[in-house]
Amino acid sequence: MNRVFNFSAGPSMLPLPVLEKAASELVCYGESGMSVMEMSHRSPDYEAIIKDAEVMLRRLMNIPDNYKVLFLQGGASTQFAAVPLNLINRTGKADYVVSGQFSGKAFKEAQKMGYDVKCIATTKDDNFDHVPTVTRDMIRPDASYLHICFNNTIYGTKYSYIPDTGDIPLVADLSSCIISEPIDVSKFGVIYAGAQKNMAPAGMTLVIVREDLLNYADEKMPTMLEWKTMAENDSMYNTPPCYTIYMAKLVYEWILGLGGLDVMKEMNQKKANLLYDYLDSQDYYIAPVKKDSRSMMNVTFVTGNADLDKKFASEAGKAGLKNLKGHRSVGGMRASIYNAMPYEGVEALIAFMKEFAANNPKA
Amino acid sequence: MNRVFNFSAGPSMLPLPVLEKAASELVCYGESGMSVMEMSHRSPDYEAIIKDAEVMLRRLMNIPDNYKVLFLQGGASTQFAAVPLNLINRTGKADYVVSGQFSGKAFKEAQKMGYDVKCIATTKDDNFDHVPTVTRDMIRPDASYLHICFNNTIYGTKYSYIPDTGDIPLVADLSSCIISEPIDVSKFGVIYAGAQKNMAPAGMTLVIVREDLLNYADEKMPTMLEWKTMAENDSMYNTPPCYTIYMAKLVYEWILGLGGLDVMKEMNQKKANLLYDYLDSQDYYIAPVKKDSRSMMNVTFVTGNADLDKKFASEAGKAGLKNLKGHRSVGGMRASIYNAMPYEGVEALIAFMKEFAANNPKA
Repeated sequence: MNRVFNFSAGPSMLPLPVLEKAASELVCYGESGMSVMEMSHRSPDYEAIIKDAEVMLRRLMNIPDNYKVLFLQGGASTQFAAVPLNLINRTGKADYVVSGQFSGKAFKEAQKMGYDVKCIATTKDDNFDHVPTVTRDMIRPDASYLHICFNNTIYGTKYSYIPDTGDIPLVADLSSCIISEPIDVSKFGVIYAGAQKNMAPAGMTLVIVREDLLNYADEKMPTMLEWKTMAENDSMYNTPPCYTIYMAKLVYEWILGLGGLDVMKEMNQKKANLLYDYLDSQDYYIAPVKKDSRSMMNVTFVTGNADLDKKFASEAGKAGLKNLKGHRSVGGMRASIYNAMPYEGVEALIAFMKEFAANNPKA
Repeated sequence: MNRVFNFSAGPSMLPLPVLEKAASELVCYGESGMSVMEMSHRSPDYEAIIKDAEVMLRRLMNIPDNYKVLFLQGGASTQFAAVPLNLINRTGKADYVVSGQFSGKAFKEAQKMGYDVKCIATTKDDNFDHVPTVTRDMIRPDASYLHICFNNTIYGTKYSYIPDTGDIPLVADLSSCIISEPIDVSKFGVIYAGAQKNMAPAGMTLVIVREDLLNYADEKMPTMLEWKTMAENDSMYNTPPCYTIYMAKLVYEWILGLGGLDVMKEMNQKKANLLYDYLDSQDYYIAPVKKDSRSMMNVTFVTGNADLDKKFASEAGKAGLKNLKGHRSVGGMRASIYNAMPYEGVEALIAFMKEFAANNPKA
């Protein structure tokens, strides 16, 4: 059967060679006589898989040695609680930038838990059509950390720079842009990301944490949310999400095979440019995001007419261009063009957009 | 390639028809044009899968309507914290039975979190070779709940009865015996289980909770651990571990196809009887568990000589009988014979045990 172009914001497309490899060894992995799904997480076969996953990711992202790589469960949403539980004891307070729904949820979670947290900048009044400018003087000098969401999936915005926080650890949710391009990990205290957008199926959460930040955990916190415990046990304090980690390993391997994150960025930039250039060249569709905040992964646009938007998503779906409907909280359209989306998918989308515009003149 | 008999305690064997079906539709699921791994969790295709999983499990376990079924992440170990966070506000204290390592961890986690918890019974002094007798008068009358681990994977013990706790909610970790036989869910306040022993690959945690127990959550607790929030959002407060839930659905479907949990129990009992009858018929191997506490899922035995035990596990592995080494904390051997272990696997194990005994006489 024909595979569709799936523009879902997450879970989202996986590279076809990765899926084919996974299918081919699903029942029996190598000489093991069993599926990866059936392996004891403490078996040599599985230990090789999880170690390879870490080694490959370290190579891919050029992760410095003084950072731990953790493969956890619970999604980025669990990290919204884990971040303050692990870090706020450093000084007792923390600062947040609210640039969209998920960074807002992270802020609210810390508030709900009773912590002294402050929103130092937000673009809520502009419908999150750009990310705030963040400078060092905006941050409370005694903040335990500054939390940001680096790419805002729902709005299609992204920081075009890494905020300079000086000595204050920068904690960033990279769920929707992780491994889409090279990034200087050393500029961050903690990076975390749900896997289901650009790394693997849903069910794995990546945490990359600088070692000196492992020492502030609330002693009464749930052990499973403690980064230090997970680091000391190489993500195996309990049974990890073994198969999802294996899938992530296949994805890392695929990117390394293509040439790494420099090549990945080039490919992603080419896709995004194609779509943004088209959007900028016409006036049927409106791209609401300010140019300096445009995401390379999630491209949002509207016709300006809610009925037409609905018709667009529905007809696109019938044409094999799936999940183009914008997030239920904002409407319009969103094309998520993660690593696994082929260039041809964006070409097909633009062809459809042209056809739709021609067939559906605005009143 | 030949599949082995995998006696791992978890992750563990999955039914071959389930693996084959998963492999056949991994790249493209039905008419969807995509893998289940790539589906938006809010798409109609995926919503049908998660709903089917719940409907099938409800049918399989005969779950009463006043219980919620949650598909979560984090493993049973996360529930060790979630249980007190969700329930202890009922009265401010809770009681625990410590019948092995995991129930001990659950108790310690609640202690670490600063709660008033009491261990009302333990068989630690007997090396956990049986489960304690628990009667209603042992429980503090104002306990929020009584926590037990129903089947102790490491020691190979299981309750042969459901403790009568009167009005006090019984909370039970069923990770290693869930869906191995029919059980009266209405006797429990909460049942939870990691998936990776008898239900699915690692990465999903099942929680079955009586609705009236959803109202005691600590208001400052991590939202992702709140059963109520998860129940109100049909396990989709954030992205669930979609593919693992799909695998669980295939397993539920497989058991329903065999005839349900009555048939499953019959098959499991037959396998366990074969092995225990052999153990009772000879004196080369010793089965340390008291007869009235024997687990149908995890069968432990030793030769009485640590070197021979080691040799046994190693040679068995070479003969295609994998992961028979006992847990690193207790040594000896353990055969985990979950639902997916064929009868032939147990026959092959006994044949090997006889041969090994003949070839390795004790001094």
